[in-house]
Amino acid sequence: MLDPKRTIAELKELRALTGDENGSQRVAWTDTWLAARQWFASKLEGLPVKRHRDAAGNGWVTLPGESERALLLGGHLDSVPNGGWLDGCLDLLAGLEVLRRFNDEFNGKPPFTVCLVDWADEEGARFGRSLLGSSAFAGTHSIDADRGRTDKDGIRLEDALRRCGVEIDRFAEAEQGQLNAAAYLELHIEQGPVLERLDLPLGVVLGTKGVERHAITFHGQEAHSGSTPMNVRKDALAAAAKLALEIRTIAGRHADAVCTMGSVKTFPGIVTAVVGRCEVTLDQRDLDAGVLASMYAEAQFASEAFALDERCTVEWSRIWSIEPVPFHPKLIELCEAAIQETADRSHKLPSGPLHDAAEVSRAGIPTVMMFVQSLGGISHNKIEDTSEEHLEMAVTALDRLATKTVAWLQSQ
Amino acid sequence: MLDPKRTIAELKELRALTGDENGSQRVAWTDTWLAARQWFASKLEGLPVKRHRDAAGNGWVTLPGESERALLLGGHLDSVPNGGWLDGCLDLLAGLEVLRRFNDEFNGKPPFTVCLVDWADEEGARFGRSLLGSSAFAGTHSIDADRGRTDKDGIRLEDALRRCGVEIDRFAEAEQGQLNAAAYLELHIEQGPVLERLDLPLGVVLGTKGVERHAITFHGQEAHSGSTPMNVRKDALAAAAKLALEIRTIAGRHADAVCTMGSVKTFPGIVTAVVGRCEVTLDQRDLDAGVLASMYAEAQFASEAFALDERCTVEWSRIWSIEPVPFHPKLIELCEAAIQETADRSHKLPSGPLHDAAEVSRAGIPTVMMFVQSLGGISHNKIEDTSEEHLEMAVTALDRLATKTVAWLQSQ
Repeated sequence: MLDPKRTIAELKELRALTGDENGSQRVAWTDTWLAARQWFASKLEGLPVKRHRDAAGNGWVTLPGESERALLLGGHLDSVPNGGWLDGCLDLLAGLEVLRRFNDEFNGKPPFTVCLVDWADEEGARFGRSLLGSSAFAGTHSIDADRGRTDKDGIRLEDALRRCGVEIDRFAEAEQGQLNAAAYLELHIEQGPVLERLDLPLGVVLGTKGVERHAITFHGQEAHSGSTPMNVRKDALAAAAKLALEIRTIAGRHADAVCTMGSVKTFPGIVTAVVGRCEVTLDQRDLDAGVLASMYAEAQFASEAFALDERCTVEWSRIWSIEPVPFHPKLIELCEAAIQETADRSHKLPSGPLHDAAEVSRAGIPTVMMFVQSLGGISHNKIEDTSEEHLEMAVTALDRLATKTVAWLQSQ
Repeated sequence: MLDPKRTIAELKELRALTGDENGSQRVAWTDTWLAARQWFASKLEGLPVKRHRDAAGNGWVTLPGESERALLLGGHLDSVPNGGWLDGCLDLLAGLEVLRRFNDEFNGKPPFTVCLVDWADEEGARFGRSLLGSSAFAGTHSIDADRGRTDKDGIRLEDALRRCGVEIDRFAEAEQGQLNAAAYLELHIEQGPVLERLDLPLGVVLGTKGVERHAITFHGQEAHSGSTPMNVRKDALAAAAKLALEIRTIAGRHADAVCTMGSVKTFPGIVTAVVGRCEVTLDQRDLDAGVLASMYAEAQFASEAFALDERCTVEWSRIWSIEPVPFHPKLIELCEAAIQETADRSHKLPSGPLHDAAEVSRAGIPTVMMFVQSLGGISHNKIEDTSEEHLEMAVTALDRLATKTVAWLQSQ
């Protein structure tokens, strides 16, 4: 029988084991993360499951069913430094509870295979590359891009992984996990304020927003703050400030779109000099690829107009971009039904943050995510929290979604 | 006979002795600065002058006259690191040429005493405290504020000065230099673009602008760039960007006023987070104390309105302020006449940068400065330059101003 309270107790046990007064410390490829994985393995004792690590370090737990085709339930045990108690591990421990229920209900042999996947290094906190394990699974990982990465102590990604028994050169073998994967479900805390503002416990995730992420540099002319009249300045900050405000107008033209200027650096950056160079970052996200492309073009156009206004020049350099990943329509429908049965009301929303589910979906596996309300919308922080009532509802709704998904897969 | 070409030759000699491929390296209290002072002493050989160092390390060269009352001509041999070839040393070497002319004309005994003052550490490049020697002379220096200063290598100001034979505890004795000082003249490069834009070689400086210098911090709420809808953000950068633009409107309301936001720092300052805290600096300057006070109040008012708009809060902290220092009306008149005789046209302008002259004026000594055009308005850089034609005119005009000033002093 499904026991959502057990999930909460296990989350607290994990927090006690791998957290400190600053929050969770399960950074991937560290001893604390390995301890969390060992603890998770101990929770599987007595279950008729098989365990293995794939070539990218993802942990697989398989409850073999009548069919080899598998329902995947995923999450990640790794956290950011000083992270919260729910991000990633709720997903996996809720999945474990669902697997237990399948095991109980079908006496160890459900009609469909059920797999739990503990994705390796979702956060990318140590080496700056998120979704590491799931991108290897999806076949979207680039060894060349990651081979040179080092952490803040200069340790190479390659060496840190080897210490955990993972060879980056063999990452591509992790794609074999796709073979029997029939569908993928992931429950996650929202990490945003939308559900709380709507006073809803749960929501269906429509997909993960695409991202256009750019570094933008305005070049003006450094000048003495005292001797340079206002009308002869070429103030790179002024152009950047106009863009910082304009991106809000750009985002406002599109329903769920967001645009963020997260970093501004001024050079020489001293109190007595007009800013000669201003480096900013722009992060734009939307679930619709057309909207995203339009917002990017609008911001570029605006930046050039502002540079001209201020007799500056502007350069753009792409940091990263990812296409929007819409989730599977049928699974969205099933997820909404599961939520409505559990909480009476549902809501559909895109995910701004990326998740392993996006990588799985990119591999062509029918995927959906469910969000549970985050208190204050806060995550990646020790104060990250969700009410226990909502956590219990989330486990129940995920279980209902799993049942509906298996029924749908069997009907195909 | 006045020989302005000799001044240019000496400036070039000094550059060759104390500069390198990156510019002038005469940072105060360093060996290169001491070498520059030794070189300057060698230029005095054969002149019937007395030399002494005051308690703050200022170098005094006195050509005694019939009267003990003295006309002071000042400048500074110290430069910023990688500085220009004119800033400060033009003033002193032009003064030397004027002293030579007085000596020649009056066979070593002019009616009025003429002093050259080589102010110590005008730039404050090493310890961050500009106008060090002249503030000791003026009695506005604070030992307590400077005792704890260290350079980037951790060397204490006190120890660096002691190495050059200067005891910070005796700084106040430098005020004795005020005793016979009847007037103070200083020629300086403009370090700004005004004269070049007006196609004028020389200008009369009305005074040094007062400065209000503040650190301003906007506090919003750090939030995930992907999961936080635009309408729930508390974006500290947005409030700061509005202020960055508004200070231009504020400055625009007052003729010669300038307002500069020179530094912006964003926290956490990462591409994926809405800015939770934004620290900026504001530097406001005007020659009129009332205008300055009004601009400060206007900026404060605006910052609070913008913080409210963005559901942020704002804090102000004064970094530094200095009152405007208007120069002496009679000397301004004489300076204008000297320039008109030399260059046909003159222009009056305030100085944005501070100069030793401001400290001398604060001591109650009638003071004026003359600016010579800066090419491109650029200073504190190896490309700092002024045409030789204009340099020659500047030496001539300073000499005429000195003659007029002595005549005025004698008429009193």
